[in-house]
Amino acid sequence: MRTVAIAGVGLIGGSFALALREAGFAGEIWGVSSPRTVEAAVRRGAVDRGATLEEAVEGADLIYLAQPISKILEAIPKLAGAREGALVTDAGSTKGRICRAAREHIRRAQFLGGHPMAGKEARGVEAAEAGLFRGRTYFVTPREVSELETPVAREFVEWVRKIGANVVPIAPGAHDHLVARTSHLPQMISTALAVALSESLGGAAKAGAGPGLMDMSRLAMSAWEIWADIVETNSGEIGGALDMYMKALEEVRERLRTGNLRDPFEIGAIFAKSLRDK
Amino acid sequence: MRTVAIAGVGLIGGSFALALREAGFAGEIWGVSSPRTVEAAVRRGAVDRGATLEEAVEGADLIYLAQPISKILEAIPKLAGAREGALVTDAGSTKGRICRAAREHIRRAQFLGGHPMAGKEARGVEAAEAGLFRGRTYFVTPREVSELETPVAREFVEWVRKIGANVVPIAPGAHDHLVARTSHLPQMISTALAVALSESLGGAAKAGAGPGLMDMSRLAMSAWEIWADIVETNSGEIGGALDMYMKALEEVRERLRTGNLRDPFEIGAIFAKSLRDK
Repeated sequence: MRTVAIAGVGLIGGSFALALREAGFAGEIWGVSSPRTVEAAVRRGAVDRGATLEEAVEGADLIYLAQPISKILEAIPKLAGAREGALVTDAGSTKGRICRAAREHIRRAQFLGGHPMAGKEARGVEAAEAGLFRGRTYFVTPREVSELETPVAREFVEWVRKIGANVVPIAPGAHDHLVARTSHLPQMISTALAVALSESLGGAAKAGAGPGLMDMSRLAMSAWEIWADIVETNSGEIGGALDMYMKALEEVRERLRTGNLRDPFEIGAIFAKSLRDK
Repeated sequence: MRTVAIAGVGLIGGSFALALREAGFAGEIWGVSSPRTVEAAVRRGAVDRGATLEEAVEGADLIYLAQPISKILEAIPKLAGAREGALVTDAGSTKGRICRAAREHIRRAQFLGGHPMAGKEARGVEAAEAGLFRGRTYFVTPREVSELETPVAREFVEWVRKIGANVVPIAPGAHDHLVARTSHLPQMISTALAVALSESLGGAAKAGAGPGLMDMSRLAMSAWEIWADIVETNSGEIGGALDMYMKALEEVRERLRTGNLRDPFEIGAIFAKSLRDK
């Protein structure tokens, strides 16, 4: 793996480039982005130079798609010519639709979906950092385990480990089921809470807002532009997660009526603490 | 106000004592707690000495009840003898039941309910700090506004301002309605999320747990012992808040089906940001 092309040099793409450098990657890194972004990325030391997607298709050993999901879906059909022995991967936060599109269009190069569970509130290459993936889950989503055994997939996974991430292989559908519950459901819950309080209390809420409400309303500040793609490509699983959650909430409601909330509190506390175990 | 008796010298009671001292209170502060707690509170510089509740009834100008709600409800009938011109207040996080009990039992001294929206994860006088109330809402809950105009109430409110809190007067019932939505509802939502994920994913959730789920599951770690009293004394309002929230969640569910989630995301973001405005 000598030449890496990163399409979308924002927070994730820029951080991946910086992390590769820090981990000792000695090849070239190209940025496929707008001229302004490429300039910022070069200044930041993330990429060596800009390139077009066509140049990446011809010359890169690894094409790393770090755009929003809808842009990844637009890019995939243009990667049909990526050469045999090259690897195409992505960092989109839903995987079913992307992996299906890749199977249809990318036949010469290998495609291996990915999803780093990393991020922060600030966006753009200015916010990129080499340590962004350290200690975080990095899902890779082969359709069959054998896809992880090709030389180029092994090399890519080895680099993901070197940048400090915990590589977790999972099938695309299982990935979307899991993150619908651990990531997309919390977002919907927070948004619904903010809407409910906005409508029922409005500005009066502020006097009663303690640290708990601050935690629970933080996700509600997320940008719709990012979530539009996620909702569009994972609505079935998100719907299932919401149905499941509404049942749990109804049980809490019922137990409030019967004065029997100790069990959910104790089960919930054990689970929440287990998420924090090292 | 020369002598203050604090019943329950834990995080809140201890912090109130330290804050009074820092704000220049020059009188005596007594701690009404177990001998072990009083010893720790004296060592911490929060109180001058221990006292019994009977001594407080006889000698204190301000009796500050900072125990759990159920203990406050047990203490109130013992305060019937508190003298005219003295003030009894409390820091319980629900107010209706406590204010009703106080009206029944405390007739010579004045009772003025209170609820500082302050706290942190650590508990006990060891965690107490003078700055705990700074910048936080401190509800005071008179039944009628005129209760704030007695000399002793004015003096108490002045001290609460001096320790840096934002004094917000609100009727007891309105308080319980408000915090059911801004505090108790977020707790129920977080607990229900933790229970739902515990049951549906168990240990598999951890790989998919990003910062969002960490925010949304933090409250689920709360101790049931604290919440038992809150639920017991505010179940009607909490039930109403849950019903309202479930409607908002159903609307999110429906809009997911029809591909129309932009509005709730944008309204939710505006509201969540408004909670953070200075």
